[in-house]
Parts: sequence; C-alpha cells; structure tokens
Amino acid sequence: MRLRRLLRRRTLREVERKFVIEGGRGILSALNSQIEIEAVYFEQTDDALVGKVVSTASELGYRTYEVAKGTMERVADTVTPQSVMAVANFVDQGLDQLPLGSFVVVMAGVRDPGNAGTIIRSALASGASALIMCHQSVDLYNPKTVRSSAGALFNVPISIVDSFGEVYDFLHSNNYRLIGTSSHSHSSCWDCDLSGRIAIVVGNEANGLESIWTEMMDSFVKIPIDDRAESLNVAVAASIVMFEASRQRQVG
Amino acid sequence: MRLRRLLRRRTLREVERKFVIEGGRGILSALNSQIEIEAVYFEQTDDALVGKVVSTASELGYRTYEVAKGTMERVADTVTPQSVMAVANFVDQGLDQLPLGSFVVVMAGVRDPGNAGTIIRSALASGASALIMCHQSVDLYNPKTVRSSAGALFNVPISIVDSFGEVYDFLHSNNYRLIGTSSHSHSSCWDCDLSGRIAIVVGNEANGLESIWTEMMDSFVKIPIDDRAESLNVAVAASIVMFEASRQRQVG
Repeated sequence: MRLRRLLRRRTLREVERKFVIEGGRGILSALNSQIEIEAVYFEQTDDALVGKVVSTASELGYRTYEVAKGTMERVADTVTPQSVMAVANFVDQGLDQLPLGSFVVVMAGVRDPGNAGTIIRSALASGASALIMCHQSVDLYNPKTVRSSAGALFNVPISIVDSFGEVYDFLHSNNYRLIGTSSHSHSSCWDCDLSGRIAIVVGNEANGLESIWTEMMDSFVKIPIDDRAESLNVAVAASIVMFEASRQRQVG
Repeated sequence: MRLRRLLRRRTLREVERKFVIEGGRGILSALNSQIEIEAVYFEQTDDALVGKVVSTASELGYRTYEVAKGTMERVADTVTPQSVMAVANFVDQGLDQLPLGSFVVVMAGVRDPGNAGTIIRSALASGASALIMCHQSVDLYNPKTVRSSAGALFNVPISIVDSFGEVYDFLHSNNYRLIGTSSHSHSSCWDCDLSGRIAIVVGNEANGLESIWTEMMDSFVKIPIDDRAESLNVAVAASIVMFEASRQRQVG
C-alpha cells in the first residue's frame, strides 16, 4: 500500500516529494496551515477528532478514503497507530523564500528524528522565524520527525540545504550573527547577547558542530551545567538557547 | 536469557529489583557512581570503551562474562545494540533518604520513557538535588528511560512513590514551595521567583497535572510561547523551567 511505502522509504518520498502525516492533530494542523494534501485515509472510529479531520478535508476539496479496519495497523510506523493518515506535499521551501525574521535555527548534523522534530516544535514555540536543515541532518519527512514536531513543521518556514556555503552566504549576507551551541564555550547563554538578528546553529548529538561550521561562528554559547552531569539532550540544549533568546527579547 | 527477560519484563525487574544498563558510557557512569552491579556481559569488540568498562568492573570485583557474538543483538531492546550490558541493582531510595537540597523535580504522570529519561538528565544538569517519580509515571527502569537518561539516573537521588499524600507531606514538611508547570498559568517562568527551596512538578504529556496535584501547588508557571504554537514537548518544558531556576540561582 502506498501509505506504507511512503512511511518507510525515504527515496520514494523524495521522488514524489510527498510524505505521510499520522494522526488527527497533525493533519488538522496541516489543513489549518493550508499545506497541500493529496488525500486523507481513515478507518471507522468513534474518535470525534477523526470525524472533524475528514469533514474539514472534504470541505477544503481534498479526497478522503475510508479504509478497512486494521489497515492502519498494518501500514503504521508506530505500535499505537492512528486511525487517520494523510499524504501531503513536501513543505520545505527555497532559502530565498524564507522570511527574514529576527531569529533562525540551523540544524547542522542532528541525526535523531525525534530530536529533530522536537527542535522544530521548540523553534516555532520560541518564535523562530525560520529553520534550516543542513547536510547530514536527519530526513525532515521521517515519520518520527513529523510526529515529534507535533504539527510545528507546518507552521514555521523550513529550508533543506545541502551546501554549507549556501547557508553561510544566506545568513551572512542578511546580517545574521551565527551563534553556535557548544559545551566547550566559555560564554554562558545567560550572559550572551541573543538579541537582534541571530542564527542559532545546533550540531550533532554525539560530536557537536563540525569544524567547517565552528570556523564560521560569530560566537559560541554554552548552557552552564552541574559538575555531576556530562551533557544535555541536543533538543533540550537547543530549546534552552532558543527560549533564552526569546526571554531576552521579551524581558529586554 | 536473563538480560532479555530483564529488558522486556517490568514485573521481573520489580521482583528482583534489578535492571539492565545498555552500553559502555552508561555502565561506566554507574561504576563511577558506585551503583551495585551484579555482572557485566560483553561481546568481543575493538571498541576501547568496552575494554575500559570490563577492566574497571573487574578491578572493582564485579563479575564479567564474555558472550558469543550476536548475543547482544538477540537480547537488545534497540535496533543498534551495544556490545556491553550490565545487570545492576535498582537505584531508587526512600523519600526519607533524599538529601534536602534547594530544588527537587517531581514527575507526576510523565508516560513516555524517553521523556522521563530526558527529564532526569536535565534535572541532574540543572542542579536538582533530588527527583521524585509519582504514581502513573513511567517505569524508571524501562530500557528507554535508562538510555535517554544517559547515566544521569546514577547521579541524582531518585525516589519512586505511589502515594500522592506521602510526596506532598514530605515536600510540605520540608518547606518546599510547590511550583506546577502549566500552559494555562498567567505567570511566566521568567517573572516567577524560582529561588529558595522549590519543587518543580511536571505533569502528563497530553493532560498536564491532574486536579489532585493542581490543588496543592503554591504557584504555577508557564513558558511563554509563540501564538503559532500549540505546546512544547514535556521534557523540553520541564528542562526550560529547571534551567530558569538554575539561571536565577546563578545570575541572582
């Protein structure tokens, strides 16, 4: 079945530029954000949310298909499958289409799909104007990334860019200060000025930022952690820095 | 095999009060923290970390067993199994044994093992003196909780307490202010005084804090989020509040 193949095969997703959204809340978020939907598939259920998704999709002119009970369980990527799924068009856009807001988040080598989705969710919530996923970061359309972003990927503009140079040129020419997160930095995120136009650059779970990136940073920040601790989860660390940027903008 | 059963069966873990630590870094962290280890199991490998774990465990007088290649893959809970595992004694302790430090984190209904482990990791890193897991929170010794805590559960004192009243009495009689995290609060975590003796209470992923808890809070804090966003991941939200408490203690 098509849903199953799209959930499992990245190459197929990339050829078709389509992916699967699992669950009512995610699909509703996509519908509200006017993401282009190819079709909605659902099983008979008492869940009012599923009913709402199907009626909203129909009203917007999208195709909806009822499938036999048990279908979702066979195709799903999770142990607790949802009773509604949608096939949607990719949502990423070109760098030149990104709005030039006050802060951007760059994922440079985040490998775990759950972490990537969580970073997208936090980026939206902390007020980031855009997000850039760079080479060697995990697939944005991996089902686990989509799930853990909790609909956020439909509400923050995202670019996927392979070339490091292209990202650097875009940020530099638009006067973004590049702020790298690094546990080796001497500068605490609480003492660092995160106001103005900044790009927060987040590296790999195990290895942090690659040297090609570190050379280009305007500054580095770390989160001061207790002596007993080794490190933080990368999505948590990124979120703390993003929300510190948000705090500084609000508290002034 | 025993490792496999201990990884999969919570009831067996609870009868024996033993659990499995997967991977060299976690085991080394446990050894450094003087957690009681029953035995270390390893496969032949070139990984220097595994060699270090085995030699450290031997020096400390723990039993080490080499197992046949492929054993770990069969028993493991993950798709990328580690080549070393250890069986260890439970590490939780009674409420009356917890140190009375300046801030405590209470998990009240966190259900996802990855979130619980991440909260433990952040609690340690933000300087929490102790952690309490309450009824209906996920199993502390679930393999995914252990993995995502990244060794932190060996370095922060943890109690598992079923009775809500017992937790409340402990905190109240020791003069902890109870701070609930809630997206419905009017008070931003950045404006709230998080100094002094506090307990940060974190609720369920979907439903937040139950009413039995909300009635007992001294105050609630929320993390101000962008209008476009619905919510944050619970481990991220908890971490932001914990690190805000840490920031206020450091910045003054």
